[in-house]
Amino acid sequence: MDNFVITRDSRHSAARTGELATRHGTVPTPAFCPVGSQATVKTLTPEEVSATGAGMILSNTYHLYLRPGIELIAQVGGLHRFMGWHNPILTDSGGFQIFSLSPLAKITDEGVTFRSHIDGSKHHITPENVIDFQQALGSDIMMVLDEVPHPDAHPLKIARAVERTTDWAQRCLKARTATGQQLFAIIQGGTDCELRRKSAESLTGLEFDGFALGGLSLGEAKRDTWHMLDITVPLIPETKPRYLMGVGSPEDLVEAVSRGIDIFDSVLPTRVARNGGLYTAGGRINIKNSRFQSLDGPVEEGCSCYTCRNFSAGYLAHLFRSGEILGLRLASIHNLSFLQTLMAGIRQSIRQSYFEQFRSEFLAGYRAVDEQTRTLQKQKWLENRLNKL
Amino acid sequence: MDNFVITRDSRHSAARTGELATRHGTVPTPAFCPVGSQATVKTLTPEEVSATGAGMILSNTYHLYLRPGIELIAQVGGLHRFMGWHNPILTDSGGFQIFSLSPLAKITDEGVTFRSHIDGSKHHITPENVIDFQQALGSDIMMVLDEVPHPDAHPLKIARAVERTTDWAQRCLKARTATGQQLFAIIQGGTDCELRRKSAESLTGLEFDGFALGGLSLGEAKRDTWHMLDITVPLIPETKPRYLMGVGSPEDLVEAVSRGIDIFDSVLPTRVARNGGLYTAGGRINIKNSRFQSLDGPVEEGCSCYTCRNFSAGYLAHLFRSGEILGLRLASIHNLSFLQTLMAGIRQSIRQSYFEQFRSEFLAGYRAVDEQTRTLQKQKWLENRLNKL
Repeated sequence: MDNFVITRDSRHSAARTGELATRHGTVPTPAFCPVGSQATVKTLTPEEVSATGAGMILSNTYHLYLRPGIELIAQVGGLHRFMGWHNPILTDSGGFQIFSLSPLAKITDEGVTFRSHIDGSKHHITPENVIDFQQALGSDIMMVLDEVPHPDAHPLKIARAVERTTDWAQRCLKARTATGQQLFAIIQGGTDCELRRKSAESLTGLEFDGFALGGLSLGEAKRDTWHMLDITVPLIPETKPRYLMGVGSPEDLVEAVSRGIDIFDSVLPTRVARNGGLYTAGGRINIKNSRFQSLDGPVEEGCSCYTCRNFSAGYLAHLFRSGEILGLRLASIHNLSFLQTLMAGIRQSIRQSYFEQFRSEFLAGYRAVDEQTRTLQKQKWLENRLNKL
Repeated sequence: MDNFVITRDSRHSAARTGELATRHGTVPTPAFCPVGSQATVKTLTPEEVSATGAGMILSNTYHLYLRPGIELIAQVGGLHRFMGWHNPILTDSGGFQIFSLSPLAKITDEGVTFRSHIDGSKHHITPENVIDFQQALGSDIMMVLDEVPHPDAHPLKIARAVERTTDWAQRCLKARTATGQQLFAIIQGGTDCELRRKSAESLTGLEFDGFALGGLSLGEAKRDTWHMLDITVPLIPETKPRYLMGVGSPEDLVEAVSRGIDIFDSVLPTRVARNGGLYTAGGRINIKNSRFQSLDGPVEEGCSCYTCRNFSAGYLAHLFRSGEILGLRLASIHNLSFLQTLMAGIRQSIRQSYFEQFRSEFLAGYRAVDEQTRTLQKQKWLENRLNKL
């Protein structure tokens, strides 16, 4: 049985709707997955995440391996039961985290040796044990171990990472014993067209359940991101789900859907929420701005999220100014709801053949953070994580 | 119409059940009120607070006056609407907060001048404007402005504070214009029997809707606390609700009910929760203790709170060890639920005439934090707040 069914193709772009079937339910695509790296979508309960409209969440093998430990989660019956999330879970392998969070990670063809960013303890990860870990966690979609080079690394280093990622992907495939868990490969290659093509071609020849694009949205120019999608997506078998890792912002979701992406994940909506950044149809606002203090209406008129139905923008402004945790929660709920409403709008517009109109209207209304600011913010965030690659 | 009806007296102690009627509903007593000083019970939504069984919450005029400002809350229709809590609210006047949080508060017979602990701005509070503020907030129960001397202050200073508190209480009574809002007086007097009697006698001669005991649970020996209750409570008209401010811990609630207290408030259950302290029938446990890491069962077997129904102690331990906010929420829900279940048990045992048995069984099972540790913890917390009185 196929894990993925395309229900509708857009006539004027690569956008499509589909249904991704997993052991814990079916996810309508294009889908955005909130991130719960440490077995919790930050500040929220499973019910709250579900109420935003999210169907699948992402968790992280690297974080869970270090704390509380894979064994402990396996003993209580797996990650779904441990964290009380009974819908689909996708687990990242930890490749990106090892390379960006662990000081002095040492990589060989065999695997990676690294030190924990929590306590400095030494660990060894291989394509094989990463699969073992994800099988023990019981996630619905597992990711292969990949090598994520710094976007500015020497082309030879990126080329070697592409080869190693393919080699490791094959070993992951062989290591898999569970039948109910899907396994996705990760296409690398930086912003080099030839390397992206090579990575895509070598991986799509293997029996994976889906294909991800990794190593993007790491500070490169947006036109490079989209160019990589334009040349890579057509190389992925049409019947397989396509997953763009680490994206992201409302405008990027719309753009990437138009280039044929089915699945997304990003910490962005919850991270900016905790800093007071709230999505509206007109763009991202900062609730700490003084103009919101006396606003009796909701953050966004007509928004049906729990936050906007129950609280004024003025109350949220007060909570943020007072350092109250409820503010972080209400902002996170609003942003996740905003993205899920956006994805639902995208899906409906594809099904009813007006996606191009939806896209242009949304982008015309939504004032995105300009590229320079965005790049600076991203670089600031990445600098500690990437400066040793 | 009386605001308070006694529904049952205990035969063997001063305990009693009652019903406190307010504009926003009736509160069964003895009642414990969670604290939301800044218009939010820390980490929780109104629905979550309500689901723990809480009927009335306490908020704080001092905090709301400084941020976001009384005027702003009044403009949107009052505190209930601002924070989305549609059940009864009791507002403290801010006496204790001014004396403990504001550097260089200057007190005269007329009122108090102090500097904001937030931005150092200068403010002037009088018995009259404190009533204006609470009327603008629209709380169901208002408190008079009181002078709270340091528990170790010179007897003459405590004596003067008693006189001033009575004088101010009379002025508060005169300043009141709202008819739907109740006004409670606050009995002071430190741990001095004569001063407590004097304070109680002078205040109970005035037309207040209820009487609070203030200036207790500030680090004095517990036998002194109980002694003050033993001599003060009999001086309060039997038909008036009696409110012990700032208490507290499970064992103290039981003890104070047996001495005739009807209403309590304290930040303790939510504050200890955020530090990983969780109430169980056997005493307070610390969820960060390693023995909980692999515990698949709930924090307390049989507990019907949201936390225990949905998550394991091991998951809570993981959240606390990972610094995840959801842990603070789940612990707060558990502790507030524990106290509300305790209060419900107390009420039922009074109604069905087995309160003394309930009390002794609870206290036999509940291992309280020993007095020395408790006093040290309290002193540590108070030292920054009280060292300038």
